[in-house]
Amino acid sequence: MNKRQVVPHRPIYPTPAGLITSVDAAGRPNILTLGEVFNISISRPVILGIAIRKERYSHQLISETREYVVNLPTQEIAQQVWYCGSVSGRTVDKFAGSGLTPVPAQRVRPPLIAECPVNLECKLLGVQEIGDHDLFLGEAVAQHVDEDVLDETGRIAVGKLRAFAFVNGEFWTLGQKMPRI
Amino acid sequence: MNKRQVVPHRPIYPTPAGLITSVDAAGRPNILTLGEVFNISISRPVILGIAIRKERYSHQLISETREYVVNLPTQEIAQQVWYCGSVSGRTVDKFAGSGLTPVPAQRVRPPLIAECPVNLECKLLGVQEIGDHDLFLGEAVAQHVDEDVLDETGRIAVGKLRAFAFVNGEFWTLGQKMPRI
Repeated sequence: MNKRQVVPHRPIYPTPAGLITSVDAAGRPNILTLGEVFNISISRPVILGIAIRKERYSHQLISETREYVVNLPTQEIAQQVWYCGSVSGRTVDKFAGSGLTPVPAQRVRPPLIAECPVNLECKLLGVQEIGDHDLFLGEAVAQHVDEDVLDETGRIAVGKLRAFAFVNGEFWTLGQKMPRI
Repeated sequence: MNKRQVVPHRPIYPTPAGLITSVDAAGRPNILTLGEVFNISISRPVILGIAIRKERYSHQLISETREYVVNLPTQEIAQQVWYCGSVSGRTVDKFAGSGLTPVPAQRVRPPLIAECPVNLECKLLGVQEIGDHDLFLGEAVAQHVDEDVLDETGRIAVGKLRAFAFVNGEFWTLGQKMPRI
């Protein structure tokens, strides 16, 4: 073992990319690409964290409307994930620009993204300034899962998710399930 | 698209497994396995979040000593990662039981784990109760990376990391780097 000390920068990997939908006061939807979404409270209740820079348009929208949806993407829409992270919803309609399909949610105003197999409707609990990002904490009040990725017991079959991970600035597919020895 | 509504439970994937080292007042080290570690503030400063249940021994140790190290594992030590998540440091010396190798850190008392290619020394900033877990926020005051996983420019080469992801209760290897179209 020969270790080198480096300057840390977004050091944790592999992390879950997410597409975060929100709406403005008139109901116009936006999409934010994030390189990570956090499972913080995992069951009672489920509380998801997302870290957003103050200058992002979605920071303003979610602060005002206090609702968002976390949509987990597949490899098939990786290009749209990059696109939604490269333009601002202040000037672009990202649903139109990406071709992604909005679907009405059940308990919040922001839409689900049809192409994402997992969608979590969240109601904002609070926002905290933590270093260079603000941490938004939201309770997941509803989860939707594509029937296509569920197994016969109703559990998510990971191999069907076509998921990918964000790793050191790159997207990587998942490989194989590791045996639990 | 045919979506089913389900009860959410730790719904975000794929997440980064971590081995968290801490020490008791006498300097005896412990190892905690987590299924996720959070990049919250990504550069100025780097602040990492870890969510720990109150009853875990590491919750007590880190609350008292206010230091921890986040060690990112490889596929080669997956069995040790499961092991460290299946026994309690209150009754077991997990370094002895796992065969993992402690290495002195530079700025904190908990050791690095030699077998992990990336190690982040953290000083605790604060703890917050969020649902069924407490969120520990720590500033990364030093990062160590194995020379073996760095490319010629000093950047981490993801393909050399032998990383894995935690997905829906399973460990999955990384597959391929996806082209950025």
